[in-house]
Amino acid sequence: MVISKKVKNALQGASWVRRMFEEGEELKRLHGADNVFDFSLGNPNLEPPASLKNALKALADCPIPGMHRYMPNCGYSETRTAIAEYLAEESGLPFKEKHVVMTVGAAGGLNVIFKSILDEGDEVIVPSPYFMEFKFYIENSGGQIRLVQTHEDFSLDLKEIEKAIHEKTKAVLVNSPNNPTGVVYDDASLKKLGELLKKKSKELGKNLYLISDEAYRRIVFDGIKLPIMFNTYPHTIRVTSHSKDLSLPGERIGYVAVSPLCEEADDLIAAIVFANRVLGFVNAPALMQRLVAPLQKNSVNVRIYEEKRDLFYDALKAYGYDVVKPQGAFYFFPKAPIEDDVAFVKELQAKRILTVPGTGFGKPGYFRIAYAVDKKVIEGSLLGFKEVAMKYGIGRR
Amino acid sequence: MVISKKVKNALQGASWVRRMFEEGEELKRLHGADNVFDFSLGNPNLEPPASLKNALKALADCPIPGMHRYMPNCGYSETRTAIAEYLAEESGLPFKEKHVVMTVGAAGGLNVIFKSILDEGDEVIVPSPYFMEFKFYIENSGGQIRLVQTHEDFSLDLKEIEKAIHEKTKAVLVNSPNNPTGVVYDDASLKKLGELLKKKSKELGKNLYLISDEAYRRIVFDGIKLPIMFNTYPHTIRVTSHSKDLSLPGERIGYVAVSPLCEEADDLIAAIVFANRVLGFVNAPALMQRLVAPLQKNSVNVRIYEEKRDLFYDALKAYGYDVVKPQGAFYFFPKAPIEDDVAFVKELQAKRILTVPGTGFGKPGYFRIAYAVDKKVIEGSLLGFKEVAMKYGIGRR
Repeated sequence: MVISKKVKNALQGASWVRRMFEEGEELKRLHGADNVFDFSLGNPNLEPPASLKNALKALADCPIPGMHRYMPNCGYSETRTAIAEYLAEESGLPFKEKHVVMTVGAAGGLNVIFKSILDEGDEVIVPSPYFMEFKFYIENSGGQIRLVQTHEDFSLDLKEIEKAIHEKTKAVLVNSPNNPTGVVYDDASLKKLGELLKKKSKELGKNLYLISDEAYRRIVFDGIKLPIMFNTYPHTIRVTSHSKDLSLPGERIGYVAVSPLCEEADDLIAAIVFANRVLGFVNAPALMQRLVAPLQKNSVNVRIYEEKRDLFYDALKAYGYDVVKPQGAFYFFPKAPIEDDVAFVKELQAKRILTVPGTGFGKPGYFRIAYAVDKKVIEGSLLGFKEVAMKYGIGRR
Repeated sequence: MVISKKVKNALQGASWVRRMFEEGEELKRLHGADNVFDFSLGNPNLEPPASLKNALKALADCPIPGMHRYMPNCGYSETRTAIAEYLAEESGLPFKEKHVVMTVGAAGGLNVIFKSILDEGDEVIVPSPYFMEFKFYIENSGGQIRLVQTHEDFSLDLKEIEKAIHEKTKAVLVNSPNNPTGVVYDDASLKKLGELLKKKSKELGKNLYLISDEAYRRIVFDGIKLPIMFNTYPHTIRVTSHSKDLSLPGERIGYVAVSPLCEEADDLIAAIVFANRVLGFVNAPALMQRLVAPLQKNSVNVRIYEEKRDLFYDALKAYGYDVVKPQGAFYFFPKAPIEDDVAFVKELQAKRILTVPGTGFGKPGYFRIAYAVDKKVIEGSLLGFKEVAMKYGIGRR
C-alpha cells in the first residue's frame, strides 16, 4: 500500500465539487472558457474592497521591520484586539484579545477546534444538507459526524437534533448563511437551539459546544440581520474567515472566537492555540493578519451578490424549478426535476452548465448552483436551464 | 472533560521551545528587552531580500485581477513550474509541475505527507536529537515516531537506522541542515542511507519513503554544497519552505516535491493534494505563492549567519563548552556542563540568557542556542556564558 488506506478510500469517493470543477476545466478546453457556464465552485469573483488594496499598497511601500517573522501561534495582538473589539460591540459581551485565535481560514479554524475538543469516537451533529468537507475535518481528529435532516425549507429541525444528542455528543455545528442552501437560520430557531443545548448539557452533565461556522456572515440579503449566536448559548465557538467578506479565499485568513461566557474558555483557548501549532498551521499568514485588522467593518458590495440572486432566482422560478429563495451566501440548492441528481447534473453539463449534485452535500435529488460569478455567466446559462426544465416537463412554455 | 484527552496530556508536557519563549517574555518585562539575550526561538531576524520586497511592491501597485481567489489545491501552475524547473536543474531529474505541491510552510507540508502515507500504527524513523514537533505531526495521522540515536557528532548512525526498520516502518525522516544541532549530513552517509533503504524495501516487499525536511537548505556555511537527496534514493519526498531562505516564516509558504523516480509518484501526489485540502490548509497563501515563484535562486545573505556562527562558536569553545561546529541552520547544540540540562538552562536564565534544554529535543544533557538574532544579542550574552562555564569548572581563566 503506497498511500494510507483512509486516503485511498476517500480519494475513490472524491469531492463532487472538485470533480465537477475538473470536468468543467475539460469542457472549457473543448468549447472555450466563455462558452462554459461554471457554477461548480464557491470562488468569489469580486475583487477585495479598495480599503484592502490600499492597505496592501501602504505596507508594501513602507514595510514594517520584522513583518514577515513568526509571531505567537495565536496571532498578532493588534489583530486579535481589533476583532475582539468588533465582537464586543456586536454581541455586547466582554470579548478580549485572548478570546480570539487567528487561523488559516475557516477550514483551518474548524480543524483546530475539532483537534482541541474531540476524543476518539466523539460525535459532532451537523444539519444536512451540509458542506461535505466537515466530515473530513471531524474525522481528522478521530470524531464522527452525525447528520440530522433539516426541514423541507432547510430550516433547523430541532426535534431531529434533540433525538441525535446522546452521551458521545460533543458539539453541534451550524453553518449560517448555509453552504449549500443559502438559507439563514432565524433568531427564533437559534434561540430554541440554545435552550435545547442548555437542557441537554444539564442532562448529560457536561457542556456541549455550539460551533458556528460563519464563513458567509456578511453575505446576507433583504436587509436581514444575522442573529448573534454568542447571545443564544454560552458555550459557543465562532469560526469564520475573510474569504468572502473581503474576497480573500486564496490567502487563508480567518479566526476562531470563544465566547467569554464559556465556562472553560481559558482551557479551550489554550487547546486551540496548541492545535493551531501542532497541526502545522503554526500561525495565520502574517501579512494578511496585519491587513485585515483595521477592516473588520469592511466588506465587498453585497448588493452585487443580491442582484445576481434576484436575477437568477426569478429565472429559475419562471422555468419551474423548485428552489428555496436563499437569504445569504451565494448558492441555490434546487430540487432536481428527476430523482437522479447526478444524471441531471450531466444533462446540464450537456448544455455546458456546471453544477454539483446534491449527493455531494448528503442530499440526493438536489443540485447546487454557486453564483459568485460574472453576471454574463448567469445570463449565458439561462437558456440551458430553461431547455432542460422543459425537457423534464417542469418548464412552462 | 472540556478538551480532548490527547491535547490535555500534550499541553501538560508543552513545548520547551515555547515555554522558554514565554519565560523569556516575562524576563523581558522585568529587565527590558535589550537586557535579555533570547536564543530560544528559531525566528530569522534578517529581512527578506530586496527582490522579495520589490515583487511585493510591484504586485501591490498593479494588482492582478483575481489574485486573491482560490486556485487548485496544489497551487498555481506558474509557481509549481518554476520550482520544478529549479529542481530539475539542481538534480538532473525530470521534475515537472505535477511533482510539486505548494503547502502552508514545511510544517503544513509534513502534516500533509504523513496524512497521505500513514495508516494507524505505521512508524516513521527519526534520528535524534530531533525537532520535537515531528512527533505531533506523525501522531496527528495515527503514526508512531521511532527515534534512533545519532553518533556523538550528530551524524547518522546507519546501523541504528537499520536495526529500527521493520514491517511497520513506512518512512525515514531526515532533517539536514539539522534543527537542533546545525549538522549537515554528508554525501557519503546519505548514499549509504539510500542503499540501506533500497535493500530494506526489497526485503520488506514495499517501497520505504525517504522524507527530507530541508527547511534550512540554503543556510549552509564553509562553502559546502548540500547533497541532493533525490539522487540518493528514488522514493524521496522533499519538504521545505521559504521561511529561512527568504525570511518569510510568518507567511507560511513552502512546498512538497515528490521524486519523478518514485514508482508511485502519481498516486502519492494525488494523496498529497487531497490531504492538503481536507486537513484544512486548502492551498498555500495565494499572494506568497506568486511572490516566491521567480525567486527560487534568491536568498538572504547567508554570510551574515556564518559570521555569527564563527563569532559565537569561537567564544563558546574558548569558554570550554563541548560543542559540535555546525555547518548549517542557525543553531548550536552544546553539551551542558552538568547532567541536568533543565537546571543548566535555568542557570543561564539567571544571566538573562534564554536557551532550550536538550530534553526538548529528545537529548537530555544538552541545550540549544538559536542564533538568528542581532549580533549585539550574541555579544551581550558572552560574559554570561563565560561566567556559567567558569562556575561549572569547564571555563579557562
